[in-house]
Amino acid sequence: MKARNPQDRSDLMSLSKPTDAFTNRQVRLAARPDGMVKADDFTLTEEAVPSPGPGQFTVALSHISVDPAMRGWMNAVASYVPPVEIGAVMRAGAIGTVSASEHSDFAVGDAVYGSFGVQEHALSDGEGVTRIDTSLAPASTYLGALGITGLTAYFGLFDVGRIKAGDTVVVSGAAGAVGTVAGQIAKLTGCRTIGIAGGPDKCRALVDELGFDAAIDYKNEDVRKAFRQHAPGGVDVYFDNVGGPILDAVLTRLARGARIVICGAVSQYNERSTQGPANYMALLVYRASMTGMVVFDYEDRYPEAVAQLAEWLDAGKLTHREHVVHGTVHDFPVVLRKLFTGENTGKLILKL
Amino acid sequence: MKARNPQDRSDLMSLSKPTDAFTNRQVRLAARPDGMVKADDFTLTEEAVPSPGPGQFTVALSHISVDPAMRGWMNAVASYVPPVEIGAVMRAGAIGTVSASEHSDFAVGDAVYGSFGVQEHALSDGEGVTRIDTSLAPASTYLGALGITGLTAYFGLFDVGRIKAGDTVVVSGAAGAVGTVAGQIAKLTGCRTIGIAGGPDKCRALVDELGFDAAIDYKNEDVRKAFRQHAPGGVDVYFDNVGGPILDAVLTRLARGARIVICGAVSQYNERSTQGPANYMALLVYRASMTGMVVFDYEDRYPEAVAQLAEWLDAGKLTHREHVVHGTVHDFPVVLRKLFTGENTGKLILKL
Repeated sequence: MKARNPQDRSDLMSLSKPTDAFTNRQVRLAARPDGMVKADDFTLTEEAVPSPGPGQFTVALSHISVDPAMRGWMNAVASYVPPVEIGAVMRAGAIGTVSASEHSDFAVGDAVYGSFGVQEHALSDGEGVTRIDTSLAPASTYLGALGITGLTAYFGLFDVGRIKAGDTVVVSGAAGAVGTVAGQIAKLTGCRTIGIAGGPDKCRALVDELGFDAAIDYKNEDVRKAFRQHAPGGVDVYFDNVGGPILDAVLTRLARGARIVICGAVSQYNERSTQGPANYMALLVYRASMTGMVVFDYEDRYPEAVAQLAEWLDAGKLTHREHVVHGTVHDFPVVLRKLFTGENTGKLILKL
Repeated sequence: MKARNPQDRSDLMSLSKPTDAFTNRQVRLAARPDGMVKADDFTLTEEAVPSPGPGQFTVALSHISVDPAMRGWMNAVASYVPPVEIGAVMRAGAIGTVSASEHSDFAVGDAVYGSFGVQEHALSDGEGVTRIDTSLAPASTYLGALGITGLTAYFGLFDVGRIKAGDTVVVSGAAGAVGTVAGQIAKLTGCRTIGIAGGPDKCRALVDELGFDAAIDYKNEDVRKAFRQHAPGGVDVYFDNVGGPILDAVLTRLARGARIVICGAVSQYNERSTQGPANYMALLVYRASMTGMVVFDYEDRYPEAVAQLAEWLDAGKLTHREHVVHGTVHDFPVVLRKLFTGENTGKLILKL
């Protein structure tokens, strides 16, 4: 099956047969990756579509969220969530439609979001599952700007970064799912917004299409030098998705009292040993802080954030960038790698 | 001249002649150190004792503060203060007595604290100079528990670390000047207090003499294993004076919402390249923060802190540990090295 979406230039070479109503194709974790994730780290399995028991329902999945954090879940190390066990279906946020239900709160035909895993059909007891309203926004938006992606950007900037109008805000991984939303939120808040991304095309899109004030192409520019030009007064808030040398470069250009939001470290996820920020003593020089955030801690405030994000989307102030790859779940390993090779822009979604 | 203090087991071999009233012996920065600081990085000079002009006064110094931060001031890199220039008198906090004055606020005989430098006589216009009351506490205490040392521990713990009763607080460099005070303040606040220091003697003193709940000997113990024993519920506040592998070890044992106070990184000051904390993504896992602090930012609140510290000292609740080396200013390079070889306990002072 070839990728059919014009946004996607890669050739997916899935050998799987088409979906049928009785077979549930799944991707299970086969091995803890050593370095860069590869196809062999997964097993592609097929089993019968489950039937719901009392208090359960099944979901036919349509969109699977593909996220950098998945790489961390594959390691044996416990993080903010337990690791995915070897042999288990790979964890993933996904959207689908209830296909059979013995659950009083979920009816056949309901569009739902949940941590359904990389498979075609999921069995659920409703725990952590939310209904989505596809009349307000396309289903995929609930994986992006109106989902975990947008919420991460929102709480990371406002609660951890404490952004305010006039701040200079730097976002790394700026062309990625969280980065595109974060930069736009900072701009909408009246901040001077600088994105860091790889390659001239991504950088041009940040400025021309998403309204960033400036973009730094880390693959072709001297990042520290670029900061002297674009952030002469220093960086007030750094929203970090990448870690590594870019984090170290930003540390040398902080403003007094700067806040660094640690959201991710995608440059390090496939490394055998993490590179710590050698310039961390800049935190002392600039009286700055570096704080880790996990979006799930803000669950009781999701409605507030979703309302604001939806209002911006509705008014056309917030652009939702998606990178949709059409395929089957068995294409997942290939799609996942795009996150680490810099091939994606915006929210990466595997559409079944 | 030999060291005369029984606390000091090193043999200082200063060849200088004794102090006289006309000669001002000084230590000037000769070179930017490459790695560990050495005697050659300084020039020992002599010049005539200055005479105060209008609005000036001279101070005959008695106690020079010897601090890890000095190593940073010797580098070319601007930090929270500018570097000491090559050829300039080495920067140092010191205490002395006004010996001649053309300044309306300072009279001959006044005991004063200021950044007077490593020399016997300093000329001052009063900027940043404070009078001290030697009837309340010995002069040297104003370099230690009632000086920058005690204030650093106080604001670092209360303002940046936000310690509260019941917290598990870890202090590294616990046998050092700031560390000994920090651990005692944490204990007085009702925290479970764990010190990290090098060698069984230092560790024993922390527990037996200063009231720490536990001490970890990083030279002879597996620090991570010791944490599992002493801080089974994780570390709420880490007051870091050392950086390096100990910071990395603590990062693996944080409690949810932990605060790391970056006060210093003495293990790294003499290294050609700084080791960044490879485990910094623990900040995300534990929703923790790492914040740099410089005591000078709290200047308007020094009186509040000094009052509290003096009350504790007076009540015998806070023990002031001093390591006094008797010598001339020309012994300074040898004394400074003690900070980096683990030879000192408590506040290191060169008494002239």
